[in-house]
Amino acid sequence: MKELRGMPVAKAILADLQERVDKLIEKGVTPKLTVVRVGAREDDLSYERGIYKRFEGVGAKVETMELPLAVTQEELEKVIVSLNEDVSVHGVLMFRPLPKALDETKIKSLLMEEKDVDCLTSANDAHLFAGDKKGYPPCTPQAVMEILDYYDIDLTGKKVTVVGRSMVVGKPVAMLLLSKNATVTICHTRTQNLQEECKNADIIVACAGVPKMITSEFVREGQVVIDVGIHMVDDKLCGDVDYDSVREIVDAITPVPGGVGSVTTTVLLKHTVMSAQRRLK
Amino acid sequence: MKELRGMPVAKAILADLQERVDKLIEKGVTPKLTVVRVGAREDDLSYERGIYKRFEGVGAKVETMELPLAVTQEELEKVIVSLNEDVSVHGVLMFRPLPKALDETKIKSLLMEEKDVDCLTSANDAHLFAGDKKGYPPCTPQAVMEILDYYDIDLTGKKVTVVGRSMVVGKPVAMLLLSKNATVTICHTRTQNLQEECKNADIIVACAGVPKMITSEFVREGQVVIDVGIHMVDDKLCGDVDYDSVREIVDAITPVPGGVGSVTTTVLLKHTVMSAQRRLK
Repeated sequence: MKELRGMPVAKAILADLQERVDKLIEKGVTPKLTVVRVGAREDDLSYERGIYKRFEGVGAKVETMELPLAVTQEELEKVIVSLNEDVSVHGVLMFRPLPKALDETKIKSLLMEEKDVDCLTSANDAHLFAGDKKGYPPCTPQAVMEILDYYDIDLTGKKVTVVGRSMVVGKPVAMLLLSKNATVTICHTRTQNLQEECKNADIIVACAGVPKMITSEFVREGQVVIDVGIHMVDDKLCGDVDYDSVREIVDAITPVPGGVGSVTTTVLLKHTVMSAQRRLK
Repeated sequence: MKELRGMPVAKAILADLQERVDKLIEKGVTPKLTVVRVGAREDDLSYERGIYKRFEGVGAKVETMELPLAVTQEELEKVIVSLNEDVSVHGVLMFRPLPKALDETKIKSLLMEEKDVDCLTSANDAHLFAGDKKGYPPCTPQAVMEILDYYDIDLTGKKVTVVGRSMVVGKPVAMLLLSKNATVTICHTRTQNLQEECKNADIIVACAGVPKMITSEFVREGQVVIDVGIHMVDDKLCGDVDYDSVREIVDAITPVPGGVGSVTTTVLLKHTVMSAQRRLK
C-alpha cells in the first residue's frame, strides 16, 4: 500500500510558486490575499493560521478583515466592493457560513471574478461546470486533483466513484475529474448500492462528510482512495474512510490528517499567484 | 416495450400552460419570447417555425430579430441590451453558434438572467450546477426530465448512465438527474467500457451525437432508454440509439423523431410563462 501524503505534493507546488512569487516581486507586485472573517470560529482561525504560514513562507501577503458577528449587510457589501477596488489585493477568501441575518448569496455575487480564488461566485461555478480553465475551482477539490497529478495517477478512461454531491467538494471534483477524461459516477445518500459503486471503481473520492463510512467492505485490491473528510472522533482526527482497515486492501490511500487537507492552503496560494500573474498580462 | 412518445408529454404540459397563459392575459400580460437569429440556417428556421406554432397555439407571443451575418459585435450587443430593457419581453432565445467574428461569450453574458429561458448565461449554468430551482435549464435536458416525470419513471436511487458530456445536454442532464436523487455516471469518448456502463444502468440517456451508436449490445431487459440524438442518415431521421434493435430488448424507449425533440419547444414556452409569472410577483 502506498500512502499518498499531501506534504510532498504541497512542497513540489511551493517550489514552483516560490519562483513565480520571486519574479512577481521583482516586477514590484507582491501577491496578496485578503481573508474576510465574520466572528472568530475556532475552525476558521485554525485554517487562517495555516494560510498565513503558507503565504508568508514564500513572501506573499495575507491580511484579515475581521468583522463583528453583528456586521450589517450594507457594511459587509462595502467591504467586498472596497476589496474589488483595491489593486493591491489579488485574491479574497471569505469564511462561511455567514451569520443568518446576512444575504450570503448577494454578498458572494459582489466579488469580482478575477479575485475569487476560492470559488465563491457563480461566474467561477459556471467555469468549473463548463470545464474551461478560466476560473478558480474551490481549493479542496483542486487539492484532490493536485494529489492525483503529483502521484502520476492517470485519469483518462478510469472509473472514478465520487461519494458525495455537495457544492463544496462532490460536484466540483466530479467536474474536474471529467475534464481529465475520467468516467465519473456521482453517489450520495440515496444511492442504492454504494458498496458496489465503490468496488466497481478504479478510484474512490470520499467526500460524504460521514466519519469512517468507507470500510473494507467498500473496496478491493488495485484501487486508489482519496479521503476528503476530516472529523474529530474520540479526540482523534479521522476521515470519511476507515483508514486502518481499508489501507490493508487498496493500492494507495491518502491519510487523514496529512492528506488532502495539507494541500488546500497551497492551492489557495497558487490561485492567488495566478491572479497576480494574470493581471500583469 | 413501451414507446415513450413526446407528444402526450407536450400536451399535458400545454394544458397546464394554457391555463397559466389565460390568467396572465387576464392580468394584461402576454408572455413573449424574442428569437435572436443571425443569418438564416435551415435548422434554425425549422426550429423557429416550431416555436411559433407552440407559442401561438396558447396565445403567447413570439417575435424574431433577424440580423445579417455581417452584424457587428456592437450592433448585436445593443440588441441584447434593448431586449433586457423591453418590459414586454419575458424570454430571449439566441441561435448559436454565432458567426466567428463575434465574441459569443461576451454577448451571452449581457442577457439578463431573468429572461434567459434557454440557459445562455453563466448565472443559469451556476443555478443548474448548484441544483437550485432559481434558473432555467436548457430546454433539451429539461425535456428529458419532463418525459421521465410524465411516464412516472422514479429516479430516486436509480442508476442512470449519461452518454455524452456536452454543455448542451450531457452535463446539464446529469445535474438535473442528480437533483432527482439518481446515481449518475457520465460517460464520453474516453470511457473504456461503454457497453458495460450502459448495461449496468437502470436508465440510459444517449446524448453523444453519434448516429445509432447505442446498439443491442449496450442494453438489457428492464431498462429505460432516452434518446436525445437527432441525425439525418440516408434521408431518414434517427437518434443516437439503434432503435430497431434496441426496442426489442428494453422496457421503454423514446422514438426519434417523436420523442425528446417534440417536447423542447413546449419547455421553452413553459420557461417563458414562468418568467412572466415570476415578474408579476
